[in-house]
Amino acid sequence: MRMVDLIEKKRNGKELTTEEINFIIEGYTKGDIPDYQVSALAMAIYFKDMNERERADLTMAMVNSGETIDLSAIEGVKVDKHSTGGVGDTTTLVLAPLVAALDIPVAKMSGRGLGHTGGTIDKLEAIEGFHVEITKDEFTQLVNEHKIAVIGQTGNITPADKKLYALRDVTATVEAVSLIASSIMSKKIAAGSDAIVLDVKTGAGAFMKTTEDAKELASAMVRIGNNVGRKTMAVISDMSQPLGFAIGNSLEVKEAIDTLKGQGPADLEELCLALGRQMVYLAGKASSLEEAEEMLREVIHNGKALEKFKDFIRNQGGDPSIVDHPEKLPQAKYLIEVPSREDGVVAEIIADEIGTAAMLLGAGRATKESEIDLAVGLMLNKKIGDAVKVGESLVTIHANREQVEDVIQMIYDNIHIADHADVPVLVHGIVTE
Amino acid sequence: MRMVDLIEKKRNGKELTTEEINFIIEGYTKGDIPDYQVSALAMAIYFKDMNERERADLTMAMVNSGETIDLSAIEGVKVDKHSTGGVGDTTTLVLAPLVAALDIPVAKMSGRGLGHTGGTIDKLEAIEGFHVEITKDEFTQLVNEHKIAVIGQTGNITPADKKLYALRDVTATVEAVSLIASSIMSKKIAAGSDAIVLDVKTGAGAFMKTTEDAKELASAMVRIGNNVGRKTMAVISDMSQPLGFAIGNSLEVKEAIDTLKGQGPADLEELCLALGRQMVYLAGKASSLEEAEEMLREVIHNGKALEKFKDFIRNQGGDPSIVDHPEKLPQAKYLIEVPSREDGVVAEIIADEIGTAAMLLGAGRATKESEIDLAVGLMLNKKIGDAVKVGESLVTIHANREQVEDVIQMIYDNIHIADHADVPVLVHGIVTE
Repeated sequence: MRMVDLIEKKRNGKELTTEEINFIIEGYTKGDIPDYQVSALAMAIYFKDMNERERADLTMAMVNSGETIDLSAIEGVKVDKHSTGGVGDTTTLVLAPLVAALDIPVAKMSGRGLGHTGGTIDKLEAIEGFHVEITKDEFTQLVNEHKIAVIGQTGNITPADKKLYALRDVTATVEAVSLIASSIMSKKIAAGSDAIVLDVKTGAGAFMKTTEDAKELASAMVRIGNNVGRKTMAVISDMSQPLGFAIGNSLEVKEAIDTLKGQGPADLEELCLALGRQMVYLAGKASSLEEAEEMLREVIHNGKALEKFKDFIRNQGGDPSIVDHPEKLPQAKYLIEVPSREDGVVAEIIADEIGTAAMLLGAGRATKESEIDLAVGLMLNKKIGDAVKVGESLVTIHANREQVEDVIQMIYDNIHIADHADVPVLVHGIVTE
Repeated sequence: MRMVDLIEKKRNGKELTTEEINFIIEGYTKGDIPDYQVSALAMAIYFKDMNERERADLTMAMVNSGETIDLSAIEGVKVDKHSTGGVGDTTTLVLAPLVAALDIPVAKMSGRGLGHTGGTIDKLEAIEGFHVEITKDEFTQLVNEHKIAVIGQTGNITPADKKLYALRDVTATVEAVSLIASSIMSKKIAAGSDAIVLDVKTGAGAFMKTTEDAKELASAMVRIGNNVGRKTMAVISDMSQPLGFAIGNSLEVKEAIDTLKGQGPADLEELCLALGRQMVYLAGKASSLEEAEEMLREVIHNGKALEKFKDFIRNQGGDPSIVDHPEKLPQAKYLIEVPSREDGVVAEIIADEIGTAAMLLGAGRATKESEIDLAVGLMLNKKIGDAVKVGESLVTIHANREQVEDVIQMIYDNIHIADHADVPVLVHGIVTE
């Protein structure tokens, strides 16, 4: 088998066999197939796409390129959740204790990553004492006993995907649905859960700018999951403005606590319920999405979800008293209001630019070497559709530096006031095939 | 400027600017832009193509990536001819003295190359004493005085093209008209002639299998040439069967001499006249193609073309007596006839396979290290449309080994006898824009 013939085959719009896809991914992982052939293939896939079978095969070839996590020692149906990434996305912090409160095992492996704010682990580390450096045995035991634990990402998971992603990034071959879908799904499948719920973001702050594109990607991923034996569902959610009010690590932990109390932002709660009900349903705990949603509302209402969060923090060395006293979380030195300069209605909050403003304060990592400041970030005081008067605060900046003119400017540039606003729908749809 | 943005631009079907194309080719030549980005771009060009302006810019960027030949010391309009490659193509050996006999300067830089038979230099070296190791000054002087000389390829001509071609070869991006056309034209333009005549082959033995594809390529090259100030024309010629009768180095020299005498194979003579008249016309020696053809027929008829060939051989150290005594050329030890096994008409002679049979005898190079045997090759005794009886010879094998069963088998496999034959048209058209 020669790689050049396989590139030509795909270039001519033909289907690659399972054996051919395995040959490519194994050869690339080992270094036998060079980058310059794989980038040409990626471009051919961009133009000629892959069918459902090829996508599933590519996903599994990448899963098999490295280590996979064995969660078989954990009892029950393990359901994982993945978001394609947005701004102020606090859903994981809410969902993990929320579904664990319904006895669904949450065995979360998480990373730090780059972005506007930290990853889930960074956010949890805003809680004093909380740590994820636990052994695999401790992890398994915690989940079996308490239904929830988080462990730092270890091991050589999907090396083929890492290599391919880095290559796509510099060869303008990122935007190919087959490649995006198999990249995401390979990581989730290697992480070992039985079922997967996907939060596919759409809008200005998301990778997928239109609902149609987001649906196409969601459908591609759901089919891959189901074709390789992992029950998968997806929610298409709006990311034209940031989710909730908080963008920052401590701020998002506080917002997650509010949401678990039933006092969080309406959009964050709505999305957590939309994703949570799929998780409960796929875990086999409810016979319909409606029933699943009722169960979730119940554990918020009766305080079990909040108790589970305390339990979770305590188990991993953290101080659970922050739940009742969130002021114990790292606090920024300066709180600076950004007042509206006009009367009107908030018409637009450009999510990714507002996220970048939070990163400028130190809330996220621009490079792997960046240090995160857990205390800083932004609190939105207004969201799209809210009326605002001159002088009313649009955003509260939580900063550890006094001079924040750059951040203020970015906020003014990216929050638009107008005569009227079209309030975006939060959940654009659910995808089950 | 970032290469990834330029790949994306082309991927999205947009036009690259002159500056962007120069950035790419300069960066690639210097090694600042890696193979994996250029292969992705080449695949994007395969799908999204380049317009006339981009093709001309790419060609000139490749010309400027290395040394160019300065022929300004040679008087008159220098016209070069290029063939896209076929089997038994003896046209260069005929055309060089033929147009030089009309006082058109033929300043030929030639290589050895891989293929079924040797390159022009290999063929000329079948003439005892003939050599191309002359200085540039000697070369210039010879052309000014005698209108004809051949020099071996020297210098670092179009390094970007060499690098890009090698990359395209292993990334399934050879078959893109923009890239083929700019590759060929960059080499011809760097070689310094004022006008270019192209022989674009079509059919089973050629790279372009259909006449439409050949015309598209020819038109692309003619436009590039004219857009960068080199007068360019093309002939689309048939390569479904080998050209002429001879396939082999000595054998083709002999056939060229016959053709210069007006006694060559009809198809070879026809093609030499079709190409030659364009050369004469572009050199400004005739006011129409018809007049140019008359002039060529005249120098064949009056012996001046043959005299010019002798002159040429003598000037470069060769023995001109081979023209009258071609038996002095290297002769093979064994002449083996391949008799027809059926009565009928020759319906098909698969050119590239017959070429490979000649290469098996040693007539051409399979790798750069192969030694060429100048004496060996094949003489076709029948061409498509010829009637044949059982026992009549189809081909005479000229071999320096006694056992040629492999070659005989290839010949039987690739010459088909039938009830009737469709004789292919030799010249499918001329392309002037």
